[in-house]
Amino acid sequence: MRVSIYRKGHFNAAHRLYNPDWTPEENTKVFGICSNTNFHGHNYELEVKVTGELDKNSGMVMDLKALKEIIEKDVELRFDHKNLNLDCPDFERLIPTTENICVVIYNVLRNIIDQKFDIVVRLYETPRNFAEYPAS
Amino acid sequence: MRVSIYRKGHFNAAHRLYNPDWTPEENTKVFGICSNTNFHGHNYELEVKVTGELDKNSGMVMDLKALKEIIEKDVELRFDHKNLNLDCPDFERLIPTTENICVVIYNVLRNIIDQKFDIVVRLYETPRNFAEYPAS
Amino acid sequence: MRVSIYRKGHFNAAHRLYNPDWTPEENTKVFGICSNTNFHGHNYELEVKVTGELDKNSGMVMDLKALKEIIEKDVELRFDHKNLNLDCPDFERLIPTTENICVVIYNVLRNIIDQKFDIVVRLYETPRNFAEYPAS
Amino acid sequence: MRVSIYRKGHFNAAHRLYNPDWTPEENTKVFGICSNTNFHGHNYELEVKVTGELDKNSGMVMDLKALKEIIEKDVELRFDHKNLNLDCPDFERLIPTTENICVVIYNVLRNIIDQKFDIVVRLYETPRNFAEYPAS
Amino acid sequence: MRVSIYRKGHFNAAHRLYNPDWTPEENTKVFGICSNTNFHGHNYELEVKVTGELDKNSGMVMDLKALKEIIEKDVELRFDHKNLNLDCPDFERLIPTTENICVVIYNVLRNIIDQKFDIVVRLYETPRNFAEYPAS
Amino acid sequence: MRVSIYRKGHFNAAHRLYNPDWTPEENTKVFGICSNTNFHGHNYELEVKVTGELDKNSGMVMDLKALKEIIEKDVELRFDHKNLNLDCPDFERLIPTTENICVVIYNVLRNIIDQKFDIVVRLYETPRNFAEYPAS
Repeated sequence: MRVSIYRKGHFNAAHRLYNPDWTPEENTKVFGICSNTNFHGHNYELEVKVTGELDKNSGMVMDLKALKEIIEKDVELRFDHKNLNLDCPDFERLIPTTENICVVIYNVLRNIIDQKFDIVVRLYETPRNFAEYPAS
Repeated sequence: MRVSIYRKGHFNAAHRLYNPDWTPEENTKVFGICSNTNFHGHNYELEVKVTGELDKNSGMVMDLKALKEIIEKDVELRFDHKNLNLDCPDFERLIPTTENICVVIYNVLRNIIDQKFDIVVRLYETPRNFAEYPAS
Repeated sequence: MRVSIYRKGHFNAAHRLYNPDWTPEENTKVFGICSNTNFHGHNYELEVKVTGELDKNSGMVMDLKALKEIIEKDVELRFDHKNLNLDCPDFERLIPTTENICVVIYNVLRNIIDQKFDIVVRLYETPRNFAEYPAS
Repeated sequence: MRVSIYRKGHFNAAHRLYNPDWTPEENTKVFGICSNTNFHGHNYELEVKVTGELDKNSGMVMDLKALKEIIEKDVELRFDHKNLNLDCPDFERLIPTTENICVVIYNVLRNIIDQKFDIVVRLYETPRNFAEYPAS
Repeated sequence: MRVSIYRKGHFNAAHRLYNPDWTPEENTKVFGICSNTNFHGHNYELEVKVTGELDKNSGMVMDLKALKEIIEKDVELRFDHKNLNLDCPDFERLIPTTENICVVIYNVLRNIIDQKFDIVVRLYETPRNFAEYPAS
Repeated sequence: MRVSIYRKGHFNAAHRLYNPDWTPEENTKVFGICSNTNFHGHNYELEVKVTGELDKNSGMVMDLKALKEIIEKDVELRFDHKNLNLDCPDFERLIPTTENICVVIYNVLRNIIDQKFDIVVRLYETPRNFAEYPAS
């Protein structure tokens, strides 16, 4: 009996969309004001989905408190109140778009959470813009 | 590497659920107060999901600004502050239920958004009632 | 010891902003697309605040269940799934702007709720537009 | 043409996570403060997804009013303002975790809703913790 | 220059509305299903408003981190995952209605937060029912 | 007959809390991680309240479309996708705390909106932290 559980987290960060291989004009054309030199920022909302077998003894798929602590320690602490472009090695060579941040968080969690579970990461950049990986 | 992105939109419209092939009694039986003669209305909330390959150069699946503009120009402008039954040719022969509006919006977007992307449309008639097409 | 309690309600209605003493051009100038002939509509969210002395025996200002029933019977039933302009005598000579609907609901409730309580009505036309009466 | 419709519901209940086959220490180790002897409680939010063929005549998958009434009668009435551990036979031998409550509600609805429809139940214990069954 | 700042918190608790001086019938008449013997529960959402002079050097009224910690230590720790009737001395002789819980939290905070600040406490029992003290 | 109307807006910006007259240690002591050198950011949500006499002819206090445009042109355009510390002269000598941003927005709007109206500005830095000016 496979059940999914979800846990939300959040972090506040600055970022800028900028491809160093492109001219400033190309960056502005593709990224618009998201490319502004001095950064802007967001309250990122994170939703982690973990799917697995329901354990008969505990009635749980995975301990939601443990999932909460993983999110706090391995995602929120890593990104909260940071400049994603300047402070986070994950984005040294990767543009911190919503999609890329989502994939990075997936990879972080995939290395920590037991392989017997499937995981999906959804990341809200704003209440109206968000991404999900892997795609269903 | 396939990622989904989502963008929300909204429009405010009047509508009425009414099948002209049925008697008023049949309409009331099936649609209840949603069939009231003089229309009522809703703040419709729209959520468009676009799934595709992550572009390595831009870090994006599809430009969210472009998606936002498509939603504004081809969905919001079409339905916002309209009477779906009287003002919108889409519903001349189609009852504007949440399901049907959702399918109509899907078809509109499917004709505009590049076929290499999969799309899913979710439409909220109220915060407690909503539909999604195609079904997963 | 004065405490305020709040109860929310909601109703879905069609309306149109139109002053019959004005020309169509004047109506469009003042009300824009809200003046469209065939109506549009909203999910109205209502918030009623009741302030009074805390009753020592019940620990309540006023029974929230009773307040809920008043809102259902005297506001929601009156306006839900209606066309405010065509179906509601309250707006026969009154333009159903958010402000006016808010004042009408206040007057309805003021006649029903005991005068020993102060009341304030807040009405959301959309999550981003709302009104409150009386003003504080 | 398969479309999904969704309807939300909610109920407020007390519960406690406790496995009678375990020592108090084991219960505290696994369930933490959720195991506290005298119960705590939640505002549970429920989301029911029903997927099926769109009916051409009604423009509906299934009447949302009928779905609303099933949720009220068979889920909300069953659990609202109850102690899940003490008042609900469903949890006599089952720990009322979010996952288990979600599966119980699925089974209740699966017995009532026509087999031609697929259903999925999502249950929010808090805005940040939730479960879904069956898993997709 | 007086500015208000707000900080939200939350706790999940069981409770029951019951006046021991009344018969069971009177309790049911006044409190309805909220009086059920075995308790039910809620996700309480708390909003604390602190008003005072803006400090020119820090640009702050009061450190929001300090306010957050007071709320965590003195309110959330006190009530979270508790049975308000059985575990909390505050409600030994006081019915834990939304109004009374709100006043108790106000009194707790009033003893801790510097008297130079005005405070207001708003407590949501559900998203649709809430109380505020002191009344404005 | 005085009524209040409200309109919401939003902007996404980077900022850093830092008093140049203090040592780095003092800044960290007062502002914590909000003082990080490379900035972080937020999705700011704005709520503007305008109170005045209800105009009998239009049924409005002030045209909500006009208020929306003022917010877009004079607040959102000024701050959206900016670094408040580096790009905005308003914060050249003022620390961009939630309180100060709120007061700055109030002053901007106070110069534009007719003096016959009272205005109040509420600014959400996150869904759990916000400020309001002037204080009521």
